Amino acid sequence: MRSSRRSVVDPFIVMDVMEAARRLEDTGRHVIHMEVGQPGTGAPKAATEALRRAMDAGPLGYTVALGLPALRARIARMYADWYDVDLDPNRVVVTPGSSGGFLLSFTALFDTGERVGIGAPGYPSYRQILRAMDLKPVDIPTARETRYQPAPADLRGLDLAGLLVASPANPTGTMLDLSAMRALIEAAVAQGAAFISDEIYHGIEYDAKAVTALQITDDAYVINSFSKYFSMTGWRVGWMVVPEDHVRIVERIAQNMFICAPHASQVAALAAMDAEEELQANLDVYRTNRALMLEGLPKAGFTRIAPPDGAFYVYADVSDLTDDSRAFAAEILEQAGVSVTPGLDFDQQRGHQSVRFSYARSTADIEEGLARLKAFMANR
Amino acid sequence: MRSSRRSVVDPFIVMDVMEAARRLEDTGRHVIHMEVGQPGTGAPKAATEALRRAMDAGPLGYTVALGLPALRARIARMYADWYDVDLDPNRVVVTPGSSGGFLLSFTALFDTGERVGIGAPGYPSYRQILRAMDLKPVDIPTARETRYQPAPADLRGLDLAGLLVASPANPTGTMLDLSAMRALIEAAVAQGAAFISDEIYHGIEYDAKAVTALQITDDAYVINSFSKYFSMTGWRVGWMVVPEDHVRIVERIAQNMFICAPHASQVAALAAMDAEEELQANLDVYRTNRALMLEGLPKAGFTRIAPPDGAFYVYADVSDLTDDSRAFAAEILEQAGVSVTPGLDFDQQRGHQSVRFSYARSTADIEEGLARLKAFMANR
Repeated sequence: MRSSRRSVVDPFIVMDVMEAARRLEDTGRHVIHMEVGQPGTGAPKAATEALRRAMDAGPLGYTVALGLPALRARIARMYADWYDVDLDPNRVVVTPGSSGGFLLSFTALFDTGERVGIGAPGYPSYRQILRAMDLKPVDIPTARETRYQPAPADLRGLDLAGLLVASPANPTGTMLDLSAMRALIEAAVAQGAAFISDEIYHGIEYDAKAVTALQITDDAYVINSFSKYFSMTGWRVGWMVVPEDHVRIVERIAQNMFICAPHASQVAALAAMDAEEELQANLDVYRTNRALMLEGLPKAGFTRIAPPDGAFYVYADVSDLTDDSRAFAAEILEQAGVSVTPGLDFDQQRGHQSVRFSYARSTADIEEGLARLKAFMANR
Repeated sequence: MRSSRRSVVDPFIVMDVMEAARRLEDTGRHVIHMEVGQPGTGAPKAATEALRRAMDAGPLGYTVALGLPALRARIARMYADWYDVDLDPNRVVVTPGSSGGFLLSFTALFDTGERVGIGAPGYPSYRQILRAMDLKPVDIPTARETRYQPAPADLRGLDLAGLLVASPANPTGTMLDLSAMRALIEAAVAQGAAFISDEIYHGIEYDAKAVTALQITDDAYVINSFSKYFSMTGWRVGWMVVPEDHVRIVERIAQNMFICAPHASQVAALAAMDAEEELQANLDVYRTNRALMLEGLPKAGFTRIAPPDGAFYVYADVSDLTDDSRAFAAEILEQAGVSVTPGLDFDQQRGHQSVRFSYARSTADIEEGLARLKAFMANR
């Protein structure tokens, strides 16, 4: 059957790792999963309890396209609590995960063939969704020395219609501080590019609080999610904050593309926002794990890392160890029983010399994984 | 802030009706809602019970992109039970509602600027999603005399890359029988157009069983949903069946665009598929309501209707009553306290002379609505 050119999407290389890990487990081997991009914890108890009550109370039909008003209001309040930003709830759009936010924002902002800058390494789906919508992803190479974040000078001559940045970033966990974010926004605006801030790892940060673009400007799209800090990956619910003059535009696209975000997930998400104690306990685990990683990885021989400010990843430059991150990941899996993500998913040019370690799982898993990595590297 | 040309999406005119109805209700007036496109019932009890158990059992993280294997297998079995079609579960893709199916199928099949035929009147989001993806919706006007379905001759010279049909259709409830569907598929294939069959109202049919495109060919996309027959609108879960050689294409797009359909909804959907008794009870209500509508609407003066084979709508040609369906709907709301959908949402050319009545709600509502419509028309 016919298929489109825009449907030619790169495979996730990590899928091959996960499949190889599964086959290994089927043979009885034990695998430590440092490839996964999601918390091991589920939704907060308060969230599932709220959903139980809602299911008792009546049908969970369509919500309005922009989301439950109470959830939009609660999200707006979070901006006051977390960032001291006064946000009109009308600017909050509840989405089917951050994935929905990307589809909505790209549709609202860009026309066929327009160029959108993304940092490399970066979240692979940025590139794939842009391509599937016949937009042009423009890689902005970043370096460990500049903590894997783009800078204004990198935008020169790129002729961008949009700039998408993530802070904390995946796969590196590095953040933009207020002045760096401001400089990037100004540089984007100066070339007429819309600024999109991916803030899905906000809340998972270790020293400084992450900066939201809304501290700097109202003229940006902010994308967030309940998947990470709120530990609700499979629920597919997130949100966007859009400029006031874009609310109606996004509403109409959302009505047609999604009708609404899952009602049950919206109910659960609203309750999750008050589950501070449980969420902070999750964060304590990440914090412990991060400290173990920052101590253990260099000891094992992974010395070229930029300490993460947030999220639950460490991105390692392994150019002193391999030129083929895919083969290297296979070797680590086979010999150490630890699955990691080859950098190629995040950086098509230089990713053959890097890997991503996730520390989203239990501390016991992280300790065991680091011990295995150390033994593996010692014998290599 | 900048916005794209592709983001210029028509508003749903029914939204204005719903807002007017809400304002009327705020003043204390009682409104019968014949504008809504969703069941008044919730998910089957077995579905919510299954979700309760799943929430007890552990985290509901991401599923694989194609959906829970058990759900895909159960959907495949449904094709054996309902249509005597032997379907490989590997061809089933669980989607975030039929909305997700439209995004995936259009991305997999069509490139920028390509022409996709859709019947008019038809579901408004077809047109809007196509436009948002920079594809060209091509209206195929249909008539009451041919029960509002396109025929092969209508495709001549249209130069289509795709043809999307719905049976039972929204807003008319009319169906294509096996030979009509076969003829359309052959005509589409003859001009190199991909055939997409929207089957989201299957299960809600009154005399003949609806025909699935899979009874005729494996070389089509079939889109379905748990929203209608399975009464799970707000859960945002549906499915597609795709040709075998498209599974990997769709999987990669889905991984990037959605990650997965909501896990909780997938669990609930799987259980809903065995809730036959409850679902048939819902169907009995629609059947009773349909009979009331087919008797009551002509008596009230809405004589130009095509009796629906399925779904829960009656589309009425009101050209003898008005040239402005929007004003007419406002008049019915204001004077009769019944909200209906102006035809303009479904047919931009001729929809100013038609309205859609939904009978998805309780029989008591339908009786009261019909009585109000009759009194209104008698005094008009």
